[in-house]
Amino acid sequence: MQTVFFDKKPRIVGTGTIAGPKECAGVVGKYVDKSLTDDTFGESTYEKAECKMLSYAVSKAIENSGRTEKDVDLLISGDLLNQIISASFTARDYDFPFLGVYGACSTMAESMAIAAAFINAGYYKNIVAATGSHFSSAERQYRYPLELGNTRPPQAQWTVTGAGGAFISYLGGENGKNIAQKNPIKGENPAYRLAPAITMATFGKVVDFGITDVNNMGAAMCPSCAHTLLTHLEETGRNADYYDLIVTGDLGALGSRILKDLTWEKGVDIADNHVDCGEIIYNVIEDEFQGGSGAGCSAVVLNSYIMDKLKTGALNKVLFIATGALLSTVSSGQGESIPGIAHAVAIENV
Amino acid sequence: MQTVFFDKKPRIVGTGTIAGPKECAGVVGKYVDKSLTDDTFGESTYEKAECKMLSYAVSKAIENSGRTEKDVDLLISGDLLNQIISASFTARDYDFPFLGVYGACSTMAESMAIAAAFINAGYYKNIVAATGSHFSSAERQYRYPLELGNTRPPQAQWTVTGAGGAFISYLGGENGKNIAQKNPIKGENPAYRLAPAITMATFGKVVDFGITDVNNMGAAMCPSCAHTLLTHLEETGRNADYYDLIVTGDLGALGSRILKDLTWEKGVDIADNHVDCGEIIYNVIEDEFQGGSGAGCSAVVLNSYIMDKLKTGALNKVLFIATGALLSTVSSGQGESIPGIAHAVAIENV
Repeated sequence: MQTVFFDKKPRIVGTGTIAGPKECAGVVGKYVDKSLTDDTFGESTYEKAECKMLSYAVSKAIENSGRTEKDVDLLISGDLLNQIISASFTARDYDFPFLGVYGACSTMAESMAIAAAFINAGYYKNIVAATGSHFSSAERQYRYPLELGNTRPPQAQWTVTGAGGAFISYLGGENGKNIAQKNPIKGENPAYRLAPAITMATFGKVVDFGITDVNNMGAAMCPSCAHTLLTHLEETGRNADYYDLIVTGDLGALGSRILKDLTWEKGVDIADNHVDCGEIIYNVIEDEFQGGSGAGCSAVVLNSYIMDKLKTGALNKVLFIATGALLSTVSSGQGESIPGIAHAVAIENV
Repeated sequence: MQTVFFDKKPRIVGTGTIAGPKECAGVVGKYVDKSLTDDTFGESTYEKAECKMLSYAVSKAIENSGRTEKDVDLLISGDLLNQIISASFTARDYDFPFLGVYGACSTMAESMAIAAAFINAGYYKNIVAATGSHFSSAERQYRYPLELGNTRPPQAQWTVTGAGGAFISYLGGENGKNIAQKNPIKGENPAYRLAPAITMATFGKVVDFGITDVNNMGAAMCPSCAHTLLTHLEETGRNADYYDLIVTGDLGALGSRILKDLTWEKGVDIADNHVDCGEIIYNVIEDEFQGGSGAGCSAVVLNSYIMDKLKTGALNKVLFIATGALLSTVSSGQGESIPGIAHAVAIENV
């Protein structure tokens, strides 16, 4: 059994998001807390800009929850940079414990799942889960110097410049969508009125179909995503149409189509209720590129756009599956293929 | 409150360890499951050797527990390489879910703490926590090409070539050291007769005292180690002498002395019951170097030497604090200092 269940219903009481200019030209533009016009965020390096964005997302998630830093019991975070320096240096700025994770672009779901698991068990009451990425820091670490102006093949994705954080809390009680209302918290932040709950999580297996094209992450991550989704449905006894939305991050347009094929072959039709964060974050023209990627992709889309729909009740049952490609420049250089991983988190208005 | 308590007593029912020739010349030599005479482990690259060692440690921990791969619910692992490829590629070889973590050299404690937390909450019954490192892969990633034959300053440590894994299980019942005996498992492995329990864990904060010398990790990690230790003692109401041994990993000889000073200043004397994994793994001559480091350092020492003493009852109450230096070549190159982190796990024969 890969799925764990959270009967205490840890709730997402606030989120914080920030994104770059290219990202904010798309659907998330009007939902993020801050749109950057300058992707250096006033810093001297892209790595420092990435770290500052992540710090912003953490602080904003706390603020939007009507809480303070003193209320936070733990930060769970990771990012794409070597030795997750964005997360580590973000954690340095705060006076709460830190749990560093690495799941590549699956980090948002991984950190939310651990946070919910810890809160559900009663270890902590308030945990912030956050991640982010930056196009320019990722590009020069994983691919080529920016100055080279390298062309990209059509199957490539574009690393999202952005960060997102979720403040996850135990609000008491067991059931009913009005728990948050019965537990008024200072400030009467509307976010509490219908704080979506994390009801279960499915930790994924590493799956490798032998993809070696580092420009085709979508294809590399699809098999693990399909595996986690099918396992989740089987273990929970839910049908795919139980969910208003199955939102994957960041398969891209091509990856999203492959996922639909892979699940359809297994008798599961997600054509009508699936979107991919990478596919929707930009206005994708497929022969140009496949959309967004990076840990910040699903972090921004989930914590801004999707969370807005959950809070307003436009969506009530969402399965969030963040996907990660587990490679490094060294592993690819040594001829290894690209395994994928995907973790799923069910977010519901219950 | 940084400390979480595990009343269900998740138990370490088996461990697996492997180490290189330089390591096995020291105290761990007669306790590890496998001593390598060739540090390439028959592989074509050091990265692949590191991955193979980690796989060995995971498989051996499962075998030494008298279990099979089918019994494992989750693998929690991480390592020092960019994008934790050793852990990810190890996970690829098994058919159980994977949770990737990054805590630099604190990974053994971090992964054990999460494993114990998940088991204590009833999410899973059997989790393997493991990590490792390799001198040659770390050296060329973090420092200089091996071919350069670079000299090392006296405050430097030596990255351990080795890996260790712990199989952590819920064996039922609540108290009493004979629980394992009352739950006989196939094979009558003596390891069950007195399986040490993980009774609590203290997740650490990131602490930065402004150390910028990348050759002096011990000094960089000491403040966080002292903070976690003092917090643990304060929150649990235990005195330092409650523990038969407070074993830190991997401060090295110099770091170990600084830790004693830092805690002594706060009125906590650990002179008589503290050792450091980095200090004891080699026969340290301090003007040559300060001992071992790397995620594999504490993983090997804890899961071989220390675990043997716990199983035979020579030690009954051990506080294991693994320490991590949160830097990358990029962060150091951009002028950042080196923050440290330390997570503590209490392992007791109860």
